[in-house]
Amino acid sequence: MIDLYSWNTPNGRKVSILLEELNVPYNVHAVDITKGEQLEAEFLTISPNNKIPAIRDNETGVTLMESGAILIYLAEKYGQFLPRENRIEIYEWLMWQMAGFGPMLGQAHHFLKYNRGVSTYAEERYGEEARRLYGVLDRRLEGRDYIIGEYTIADIACWPWVSRHEWQEIDLRDYPHVRKWYQRIAARPAVQRGYHVPDHVNQIPQG
Amino acid sequence: MIDLYSWNTPNGRKVSILLEELNVPYNVHAVDITKGEQLEAEFLTISPNNKIPAIRDNETGVTLMESGAILIYLAEKYGQFLPRENRIEIYEWLMWQMAGFGPMLGQAHHFLKYNRGVSTYAEERYGEEARRLYGVLDRRLEGRDYIIGEYTIADIACWPWVSRHEWQEIDLRDYPHVRKWYQRIAARPAVQRGYHVPDHVNQIPQG
Repeated sequence: MIDLYSWNTPNGRKVSILLEELNVPYNVHAVDITKGEQLEAEFLTISPNNKIPAIRDNETGVTLMESGAILIYLAEKYGQFLPRENRIEIYEWLMWQMAGFGPMLGQAHHFLKYNRGVSTYAEERYGEEARRLYGVLDRRLEGRDYIIGEYTIADIACWPWVSRHEWQEIDLRDYPHVRKWYQRIAARPAVQRGYHVPDHVNQIPQG
Repeated sequence: MIDLYSWNTPNGRKVSILLEELNVPYNVHAVDITKGEQLEAEFLTISPNNKIPAIRDNETGVTLMESGAILIYLAEKYGQFLPRENRIEIYEWLMWQMAGFGPMLGQAHHFLKYNRGVSTYAEERYGEEARRLYGVLDRRLEGRDYIIGEYTIADIACWPWVSRHEWQEIDLRDYPHVRKWYQRIAARPAVQRGYHVPDHVNQIPQG
């Protein structure tokens, strides 16, 4: 059985969506980051960077932080969503999500959604970077149903960040290929289940 | 032969250091990001996110962006610095570097080094995050010579970012385990060669 330590954030949802897609049983432990539970000593033994998500695989004893590493671990273990022949290209776009389309959208959330008015410069910087990154993804998805041909962990990594497009002040109609891809994935039952882990806090935003 | 498209930045140096460690021949193509050369059409075919580093492997035809993916590709191809038995733990810390100790230090460079005075709030935010991240790495390196026991691509990914500690206003004496690790790696001949790719612009900073 897998123990999942998570919260209703894009990085947390990546892992719950993958677990639902894999259809494997897992226990959810809600780590309420609004109450600082990610700083508690027990959690730090699993996630020394004090971030969710993290997992413990009770079959192997493996504990793991960093959503990108967890996606690779689970996809390899269960042999799905990381086809061997496209592995390196999947890593490339997974890294793009982990290093850019994630950290930079996170800064957009911080300055555009949570801290409006503290720095016009930062609002413009991260708003502009968000639009640039959506442009990169839109060009990538032109003529493709999924980022790497078929549905893989690269899509599962990116999709929850796109689901926060309103916070990023992104209108998906400006990125038609991203919009179709977003809706295609939102229609998957496993995505609908994984989105509401640990709790149902809102409907999946429409694209 | 590998074609490397790079510039004298932490992400660029990760790849040139690994290539030097592997002792494989490679051609260097300098992409001068101060002149916007990363936006040229030919480069975008290799790196659709318009960032260095990127590679073309002329033996396989593979082109690849994202330093984290390039490190995995090269380490697998040449069978070094990514030992199979520790692979998942290496991915975990490689992802930590790609998603945090990299993007956030990059924001520290932007606000503390290049744009002093535009936002006190952002200077404090990224200065504080830099110190938090160095603390995480310091605790990880307590009792370890390298991040995952032996020298791996996780170290190669982190080290070039630590070499910019002055830009981040970090005093390595506050992080004694990081400091010893930094000096240990700086002493490697391959690191000294890889640091000065594509050009020698400064000495490796002392720790």
